[in-house]
Amino acid sequence: MKHSLRPVAAALLGLSAAALALPAAAQSTVQLSGIADAAARSVSNQGRGSVKSLVSGSNNTSRLVVRGTEDLGGGLSASFWLEHGIALDTGTSTAAGFWDRRSTLSLSGKSLGEVRMGRDYVPTYLNWVRFDPFSHVGVAGSNNSVSATPLGPIRSAFGSNANTTVRANDTLQYHLPGGLGGIDGQVMLGAGEGAGNKVIGARLGYVAGPLSLSAARVQTENANTSTGKFIDTAIGGTWNLGFLRANAVWRQFKQNQSKQTNLMLSGTVPVSTGEVKFSMIRVDLDGRVGTTSIDPNGSTHLGLGYVHTLSKRSALYGTCSRISNRGAATYQVPGGPAGLAGGGRSTGYELGMRHNF
Amino acid sequence: MKHSLRPVAAALLGLSAAALALPAAAQSTVQLSGIADAAARSVSNQGRGSVKSLVSGSNNTSRLVVRGTEDLGGGLSASFWLEHGIALDTGTSTAAGFWDRRSTLSLSGKSLGEVRMGRDYVPTYLNWVRFDPFSHVGVAGSNNSVSATPLGPIRSAFGSNANTTVRANDTLQYHLPGGLGGIDGQVMLGAGEGAGNKVIGARLGYVAGPLSLSAARVQTENANTSTGKFIDTAIGGTWNLGFLRANAVWRQFKQNQSKQTNLMLSGTVPVSTGEVKFSMIRVDLDGRVGTTSIDPNGSTHLGLGYVHTLSKRSALYGTCSRISNRGAATYQVPGGPAGLAGGGRSTGYELGMRHNF
Amino acid sequence: MKHSLRPVAAALLGLSAAALALPAAAQSTVQLSGIADAAARSVSNQGRGSVKSLVSGSNNTSRLVVRGTEDLGGGLSASFWLEHGIALDTGTSTAAGFWDRRSTLSLSGKSLGEVRMGRDYVPTYLNWVRFDPFSHVGVAGSNNSVSATPLGPIRSAFGSNANTTVRANDTLQYHLPGGLGGIDGQVMLGAGEGAGNKVIGARLGYVAGPLSLSAARVQTENANTSTGKFIDTAIGGTWNLGFLRANAVWRQFKQNQSKQTNLMLSGTVPVSTGEVKFSMIRVDLDGRVGTTSIDPNGSTHLGLGYVHTLSKRSALYGTCSRISNRGAATYQVPGGPAGLAGGGRSTGYELGMRHNF
Repeated sequence: MKHSLRPVAAALLGLSAAALALPAAAQSTVQLSGIADAAARSVSNQGRGSVKSLVSGSNNTSRLVVRGTEDLGGGLSASFWLEHGIALDTGTSTAAGFWDRRSTLSLSGKSLGEVRMGRDYVPTYLNWVRFDPFSHVGVAGSNNSVSATPLGPIRSAFGSNANTTVRANDTLQYHLPGGLGGIDGQVMLGAGEGAGNKVIGARLGYVAGPLSLSAARVQTENANTSTGKFIDTAIGGTWNLGFLRANAVWRQFKQNQSKQTNLMLSGTVPVSTGEVKFSMIRVDLDGRVGTTSIDPNGSTHLGLGYVHTLSKRSALYGTCSRISNRGAATYQVPGGPAGLAGGGRSTGYELGMRHNF
Repeated sequence: MKHSLRPVAAALLGLSAAALALPAAAQSTVQLSGIADAAARSVSNQGRGSVKSLVSGSNNTSRLVVRGTEDLGGGLSASFWLEHGIALDTGTSTAAGFWDRRSTLSLSGKSLGEVRMGRDYVPTYLNWVRFDPFSHVGVAGSNNSVSATPLGPIRSAFGSNANTTVRANDTLQYHLPGGLGGIDGQVMLGAGEGAGNKVIGARLGYVAGPLSLSAARVQTENANTSTGKFIDTAIGGTWNLGFLRANAVWRQFKQNQSKQTNLMLSGTVPVSTGEVKFSMIRVDLDGRVGTTSIDPNGSTHLGLGYVHTLSKRSALYGTCSRISNRGAATYQVPGGPAGLAGGGRSTGYELGMRHNF
Repeated sequence: MKHSLRPVAAALLGLSAAALALPAAAQSTVQLSGIADAAARSVSNQGRGSVKSLVSGSNNTSRLVVRGTEDLGGGLSASFWLEHGIALDTGTSTAAGFWDRRSTLSLSGKSLGEVRMGRDYVPTYLNWVRFDPFSHVGVAGSNNSVSATPLGPIRSAFGSNANTTVRANDTLQYHLPGGLGGIDGQVMLGAGEGAGNKVIGARLGYVAGPLSLSAARVQTENANTSTGKFIDTAIGGTWNLGFLRANAVWRQFKQNQSKQTNLMLSGTVPVSTGEVKFSMIRVDLDGRVGTTSIDPNGSTHLGLGYVHTLSKRSALYGTCSRISNRGAATYQVPGGPAGLAGGGRSTGYELGMRHNF
């Protein structure tokens, strides 16, 4: 709209299009946008009572984005993306690193693809979250099943340091251009820089009409993985039936002798006033960490939600979820009381509002 | 370019140039604004000498605000507000939480009022600061009389943790709509979330011509208040005489056996080049904390200032103030030398500039 | 005004009101801009191997700038400048203070000059960096020769606290106006505020055709400098020959019985597709710190780079550098392996992209 406006307005006003570059910020192409999302939540943990809270980012993480693109001519463009996560309930940053969600610089060619540098999502995360109707967050978000808390490959590989199940620092990426007959993909390299996580990963996808399929793999090395790299694999697909968008995705984390396998079946049903969405995740731990067997541990997550559209940019939503653990596992809905025993049950619901700006 | 465009386009559209500002952010409704305020200050503490400093936010706290409103139709609107405090003198955030000053999401109806979620001012603070011509800040700001430093109900209830005398996290609010015949008001609830401050508060105000009256109360519970909730009450009024806007406000903090009572009389006198303003605050501590009597402690604060208008958005200002303590109290003008003895006197003055952007 | 404008303007331009969103930010003159800069780097330290990394800000520090100016009439203006440094590779702030790079408020008069308050560059830094074609950063940046790491006056005066070789907090400045026949200059005062760095400095410059000369001096006092102030002096000049812009600059840090002298010869050669640039820096330490002689210590830095212009705002670049130490000195190219021995050699190169937004 903005671009089509310029020549029209310029002609009307008898000025050159450049002169109508419309202000200050106008000379640059910087866009300031984001999401404000807040909800009232209640979470019960078996035998521990419940906690009521006001939370941030349950439909979509609250954030502030500064980004822009420059047309360099000849199909080339330069672009940058800075994304800051906000805990709207307390007015804090969601991570110590301010632009923790994404900070990248790109050089792109229409038919050449994109070279991207900086902190960004790993390919496996992208290949998981696209199948999660809850966008990885909230009481039913699949982040609840990707945790370093129960003993397993994630904890074993990263300890309490930053893991690479969502994002990685210091990376160089190449993304395929559009127009490859339904094929898209990317590769990511992070050199590790002596002390950090050395990352190598890729994703390949294919879209054919209502069907899409994609697979990704990320391998991480650090001091903790000296006895075996951390291997993260995700394979999934979507069948868009019109009345239902159905997804299935499988993700496996492996390190040394331990393995965590997550399987999610999910769907979105458009209704006249918004959409209904649901997911079922099964988590299975296998093998051992040191001499501790993690075989009996796992969980089943059920999530159900409704999003009521207020406008293109705003919505109200309600979500409920239940996590049933097995063995010593303590996966839980976030925001509940501390002290859930291994094998216990965690349930939660929330009512909130999301506003894109 | 920008400036030359405005008159041309404005003439065409039959509007003033200011009305046609037209920026980039144009596609969204995000507003980026704020305040830059800096001053040179000198503060003397009795028997301790003086300190000269360059300070931030003495007329109004330096800040950056990102906010926006979306019209949802039918009188409904969605809006958000993110506000970050800046220590302009050192280039740092005024608090560890970046959006510490305010981070809220609202759904409002013209005749229904506003539901607001997030971190925000408590009703009692709002019912105090509206009567303080120094906006709670600077050498004469009434924040100097709301301190956890001398032993009393604030220290007793919150220790060195965040207190709720200004803002609270994790809150749900309802604000009355406009058009209720001069009545305005709000309620605030914060569930506490197990570990934080559980807050319940309200404010009710009434405006009748040149007179306005309002009262607010906030009750806070946390681990430290198990033997008695922290009760914050504020009642005040304004009489606008035209040549003088006169205010009187009473605020009391209570917890367990301790009580702090602040009484402020203040006024603003418009002059041709700006405004003159003054305040007198009397602080009285009563009762005891543990076995320590705080009865003899208290202080008297005097403040006088002049704000010289440069434009609608910018001003120069000068302020002076004196705090006289009684008993063991050590209220003081901020920025002075350490070690003021109980009952000592603290005086300060500052010359500065404020710029709203 | 804004809302009433939309339908009018939209009708005139034949567009929907939504397309002409004309927002809010429109009323203010806030500019949001910055730089995104990232590079792949490899650094070898003699006897320690090499490290490959993805880094931020090698051609110019990645940053976000919020600034604005208000015309107050009569040649007066108010302006502010907030500048945040970004580590684009990891999505973090480059310093604990968010607006660490600059946070200032100014009142300026066309013929009166500018009064500026806040955190800003010290005059000596400005009088050094203007002669550094590598802008103080990257593998060949002259920041590599201004380090607190080898024992010398900087370490001795500031320990591990913030030093004033680049910026100072809490300062009041006066900058000369333009139009003084080629003369420009500034003075800076920082009161120290009891605990910080007390700073007093000035810079004076003269431009005559292709020649420019300038000198600056900054004196800092703090607890560590009680036995002798930290004195920072910088004198330099540029001769613009058209095909070559040649610079020479001398900078000396002194404290108590220790001295560090940096001499840089540098140049920039415009070529059709961008520019070639080079620098040579010789560092000499003299005297002693406590009973330790630092006389034998020093280094020689060589830097060579090429910047390939993609547009006015974007460029690709490649840089290489070598630092050869003498005595116990361990100056090094940033990003290399730890443990360089005194007198060792450090070399590095990088390939990157810079994008101004």
